[in-house]
Amino acid sequence: MSAGKVVLALDGMGGDHAPDVVVDGADIARERYPGTTYLLFGDPARLKPLVDRRKGLAPVLEIVPAEDAVTADDKPSFAVRRRRKSSMWLAVQAAVEGRADSVVSAGNTGALLAISMFSMRMLEGAHRPALASFLPTSRGEVVMLDLGANVECDAENLAEFAVMGSVFAQALQGLDKPKVGLLNVGSEELKGHDEVRQAAAWLRRDGSPVDFYGFVEGNDIGTGVVDVVATDGFTGNVALKAIEGTAKLYSSFVRDTFRTSTFAKIGYLFAAGALKKFQKRVDPRRYNGGVFLGLDGVCVKSHGGTDALGFAYAIGVANDLVRYEYKNKLVEGLTKLRQTISAAESSSSELQPSGGAE
Amino acid sequence: MSAGKVVLALDGMGGDHAPDVVVDGADIARERYPGTTYLLFGDPARLKPLVDRRKGLAPVLEIVPAEDAVTADDKPSFAVRRRRKSSMWLAVQAAVEGRADSVVSAGNTGALLAISMFSMRMLEGAHRPALASFLPTSRGEVVMLDLGANVECDAENLAEFAVMGSVFAQALQGLDKPKVGLLNVGSEELKGHDEVRQAAAWLRRDGSPVDFYGFVEGNDIGTGVVDVVATDGFTGNVALKAIEGTAKLYSSFVRDTFRTSTFAKIGYLFAAGALKKFQKRVDPRRYNGGVFLGLDGVCVKSHGGTDALGFAYAIGVANDLVRYEYKNKLVEGLTKLRQTISAAESSSSELQPSGGAE
Repeated sequence: MSAGKVVLALDGMGGDHAPDVVVDGADIARERYPGTTYLLFGDPARLKPLVDRRKGLAPVLEIVPAEDAVTADDKPSFAVRRRRKSSMWLAVQAAVEGRADSVVSAGNTGALLAISMFSMRMLEGAHRPALASFLPTSRGEVVMLDLGANVECDAENLAEFAVMGSVFAQALQGLDKPKVGLLNVGSEELKGHDEVRQAAAWLRRDGSPVDFYGFVEGNDIGTGVVDVVATDGFTGNVALKAIEGTAKLYSSFVRDTFRTSTFAKIGYLFAAGALKKFQKRVDPRRYNGGVFLGLDGVCVKSHGGTDALGFAYAIGVANDLVRYEYKNKLVEGLTKLRQTISAAESSSSELQPSGGAE
Repeated sequence: MSAGKVVLALDGMGGDHAPDVVVDGADIARERYPGTTYLLFGDPARLKPLVDRRKGLAPVLEIVPAEDAVTADDKPSFAVRRRRKSSMWLAVQAAVEGRADSVVSAGNTGALLAISMFSMRMLEGAHRPALASFLPTSRGEVVMLDLGANVECDAENLAEFAVMGSVFAQALQGLDKPKVGLLNVGSEELKGHDEVRQAAAWLRRDGSPVDFYGFVEGNDIGTGVVDVVATDGFTGNVALKAIEGTAKLYSSFVRDTFRTSTFAKIGYLFAAGALKKFQKRVDPRRYNGGVFLGLDGVCVKSHGGTDALGFAYAIGVANDLVRYEYKNKLVEGLTKLRQTISAAESSSSELQPSGGAE
């Protein structure tokens, strides 16, 4: 993997609007990321006409035939066992075998995680993978993880997620020392369950690989008080979906508002431009590109319902991670974490008595 | 406790704007709930002038002197040990000793929970109290619990919370058979950790005391697909605060939108009435009145920053619970749950293998 040239494997058949959005997304990305080339996996009969229509794409993109595809309904275990000729499987293998630096897919999330975990090993020092993504805040964006790869996490997993999120924010946002918070039910040291308090005790120590802010609460996710929010996959998945649901609910309230009266409808005509900016500000495509961190490989998951712009964004995430040499940086961070934990364990126990929510 | 006459103990000194909003709230409630009388605990020198100013309040309200008050910064353990002459402590004791049917406070949440748990026992068949509240949905409201009373919950706690939430929705919303969902990372039976799957297996059985919908995800909280969402206090607290934070973020985005251009400002003038309706629709005061369920007593927590209207709403919650004979109904439900669990345990184990998020 050279710094100058990046090769990305694309799952041509994954997602609700594949293969069109995959090819269109690659075409947008082609202009944005010169020096990056693509291996596009899928059915050549469907892919070739789409690629040929986009001038300039053919020279940087090679179609690799795959006769099968993972469906949205495939169970993860089924995908691992029975979809070995699928575009998703073959794209992941290209990354595993070094023919590509990273893989991008808009296909079935569970299948992609299962195939990636099965094919790529865990990165040295990482015990569990985490699904990370960006969420909007009042100041910009925040990285949140784990969004559902692991429903049960111990203190070590949580501390590793904090390190993964920190390196991810460095790679994607160019931050030198991202501020990392652990999600909890209160900000005091005594709050929360044993796992989160133990993880915090490690991250707080001198020599910790992250700039640890401390505990944050659910309402802090959207304020931008930290750059990274780490939590277990159960809490993270519920929080992510609660945020998405609330955003949807509020958007529908706002839409309803402008239908309530003639005055409101006239108001809408004047405010339409500004309201479109509002919609753009909360546009989920800007936050497209969840990443499985902790694997010995870079695997980017685009939303299944994404359009070409969103898919191009996901390609950008993969590109940034590869160019930042994210894996090497993460191994360094995890090594430092291991040293911090060893140092903590050789001194006295740092656990404090349990406490409830605020 | 008779069905006709209800006595409510009010913590006159609890909350950011006490005692004014407490007295004003009682005055609003007086008109709404005829037949209900009040014991108002606090400093008579401050309370009496406020009460005298409201015509019609004195005949239904008795001031009970309390020389101390719990502060917002008091640790729960400190409040239990050192605030035995406070308005909060004495108001809770009135409910414990039968002089009042219920207690309402806008004071320190942790202190109120600790004092209530210490003074009231747990209700027969309940192992842990849960903090429950209403949240807005696209169809109306949903009851969610536990919002932070217990950070760690086993399967039995979760199943009990489902029963508590169901009886609460019956009492407050007049629903005959509220639909109850358990919060999880996916809707399939195999998803989630052991605790949530075991609780679901019990609630799904014939003879279960609740109308069990199944698993719901974070985005289902706001859709109104169920009437009750039960979860552990860690996840519930994070989800609640994530929802509140997102609502706030979106409101600020909407406000910003109308400042972006002259056209937008003109649009605002036309749409102002409709936008005020929007603000009202998402008004947190409509969802004021968290309740500690599972205690052998009825304890209603109003938001600390509430105004009189919000406090009157919290009084309404207490009133409804008492009139519905919520405690008797909950004991019935918990007894039925115990029978369901026993029946399940005498048959084979119903646990299924573990699964990750969607």
